[in-house]
Amino acid sequence: MKPEPVRVRIDLGERSYDIHIGCGLLDSPASYAGLPAGTAAAVVTNRTVAPLLAERLAAVLGAQFKRVQIIELPDGEAYKDWTALNGIFDALLGAACDRKTILFALGGGVIGDMTGFAAACFMRGVPYVQVPTTLLAQVDSSVGGKTAINHPLGKNMIGVFNQPLRVIADLDTLDTLPQRELSAGLAEIIKYGPIADDAFLAWIEMNLDALKRRDKGALAHAVKRSCEIKASVVAQDEREADVRAILNFGHTFGHAIETGLGYGTWLHGEAVGCGMVMAADLSVRLGLIDTTYAMRLRAIIERAGLPVVGPALGVARYLALMRLDKKSEAGETRFVVIQAPGHAVVRVAPDAVVAEVIEAHTR
Amino acid sequence: MKPEPVRVRIDLGERSYDIHIGCGLLDSPASYAGLPAGTAAAVVTNRTVAPLLAERLAAVLGAQFKRVQIIELPDGEAYKDWTALNGIFDALLGAACDRKTILFALGGGVIGDMTGFAAACFMRGVPYVQVPTTLLAQVDSSVGGKTAINHPLGKNMIGVFNQPLRVIADLDTLDTLPQRELSAGLAEIIKYGPIADDAFLAWIEMNLDALKRRDKGALAHAVKRSCEIKASVVAQDEREADVRAILNFGHTFGHAIETGLGYGTWLHGEAVGCGMVMAADLSVRLGLIDTTYAMRLRAIIERAGLPVVGPALGVARYLALMRLDKKSEAGETRFVVIQAPGHAVVRVAPDAVVAEVIEAHTR
Repeated sequence: MKPEPVRVRIDLGERSYDIHIGCGLLDSPASYAGLPAGTAAAVVTNRTVAPLLAERLAAVLGAQFKRVQIIELPDGEAYKDWTALNGIFDALLGAACDRKTILFALGGGVIGDMTGFAAACFMRGVPYVQVPTTLLAQVDSSVGGKTAINHPLGKNMIGVFNQPLRVIADLDTLDTLPQRELSAGLAEIIKYGPIADDAFLAWIEMNLDALKRRDKGALAHAVKRSCEIKASVVAQDEREADVRAILNFGHTFGHAIETGLGYGTWLHGEAVGCGMVMAADLSVRLGLIDTTYAMRLRAIIERAGLPVVGPALGVARYLALMRLDKKSEAGETRFVVIQAPGHAVVRVAPDAVVAEVIEAHTR
Repeated sequence: MKPEPVRVRIDLGERSYDIHIGCGLLDSPASYAGLPAGTAAAVVTNRTVAPLLAERLAAVLGAQFKRVQIIELPDGEAYKDWTALNGIFDALLGAACDRKTILFALGGGVIGDMTGFAAACFMRGVPYVQVPTTLLAQVDSSVGGKTAINHPLGKNMIGVFNQPLRVIADLDTLDTLPQRELSAGLAEIIKYGPIADDAFLAWIEMNLDALKRRDKGALAHAVKRSCEIKASVVAQDEREADVRAILNFGHTFGHAIETGLGYGTWLHGEAVGCGMVMAADLSVRLGLIDTTYAMRLRAIIERAGLPVVGPALGVARYLALMRLDKKSEAGETRFVVIQAPGHAVVRVAPDAVVAEVIEAHTR
């Protein structure tokens, strides 16, 4: 039985919006009702997603917009750069799109981040809608308005906060997702447990097999609960002045892995999975949580099909890469650590302790 | 006698800020009082301005910031592109700058536009201060938060609205400005008369010689009144939903000249000067104002040392370039026209009439 569609509200004053979660949403005109009538819609997608879904989205948008254009970018984190971003501008200007254009991000986190950034910058701002088609994008990257491209010196270094008009998370689009990508999405779902909801971690532990075999009911609950937690955190701190940083649990180590190996070698969710193992161990070494909890988290991450041992970049390289993290201040790296099950905080840690963590979890 | 320093307030709620106008402001610590104490300051400037002013600004900022970095870009509109923008990111990341960095835009409109855009995007947003050193930047581009880079298909196509923390307009920095650049600045000053203040146009007419010989009292009044008018318009419509577009008087034709000739061939102010002659004639041909007023405006523009005849790009090319203007909607070019002296409106015009204007004012 298909789960009932649900909506999760992101409460940000005049920038508030809904996340629609359910099956069959992509092809349903109701999903797009109430969006401003633009003169043109542009579907930004990648070469992997396009043949599966782009024409279907273009067809349903065709009933509402005068003109629908499909813009295809190369697939993968390695292409989350200025060249691909500029490809969006070239296509929009080449088709004489104006300030009434609405962009639709159809794809995973890379497409969502780049489309949101392009929408912020095209003619100083046009609206956009997220249509995430990976589990990771549905539970994390499509929600909250963080947009960016990578810089050779650091991930997501160039970008803006730009909230979408709506997020349409159609669970049916996950049917064709490669298993490796599904696991990557599970990493961000698991994340919400230790940082914000210990009961949710227990639920994930119980339902991990159902999630892995893409049971729609299990996915619907996981996506909904993840979005609720993210919505609550983002509503408190849209621009990451403080508490929003906890959503970056596992990301400081994870970004170092991604940047150190070259973007796209590991999937973002894989790096976050391994990064959470390291950040949990750091929390243990700082005396915040006990080893049992860290081992339990590690076991869940491993069961989800994610790597739990990082690449041997060397301690010095890890430390140098992490010092460039956006959470760093005055040369000090700041880590999201678990203070107690379901509760994360941001703090600095001595290099010597971080080095122990790196030594213990890379090879 | 030096004019007294004055401040003009831009009223935008929590994004409100002051424009400081006067002599000797660049070297005065008082100009920077109250700015947030960042860990680092980065002065973004160009190779022409740097030897004259960058060390002086760095010296005064050195008393307030732990670290001051100077980032030099190539000079000119031809370099208002992604490559130069990325040079700012490279320098900031190379120096391990963090989210507490403040950027200072020291230069003309190109530097201000690029620094403001870089500040918006670096790690999803750091604050910035405008220190305009050209007349054009002091009366127009440093005020109001429009930032952008050019795209081969259109000027200022890629950018965001991002208000500075403060604008510091030191009239003494105009002493070394080439006469051609001074004239370019006069174009934007003249603009404020026909669109918003007929009495100001009469004042400009009376004081044009004093402005051209850089009389500080005359400059102080011209900069102040220009900023007051811009402040009032921007406060009504920060993101150019409607009335702000009148500040673009002369710019639709002007941008076509700049893009058509290749960025940097004409100065922006020169293109706007000639563009105003064309837009005034369009207003006459649409039956809005009489020829006498258009001829008077043309005479002032010519006396200011600005071109009043556009390059012969051909009617078709002008029309095509203008259709890409950001004010265009659904393929229709919209022009800022003078409805009555001191009052501008935005409207469409038949291609045939626009063609007559182009024929009459280009060769």
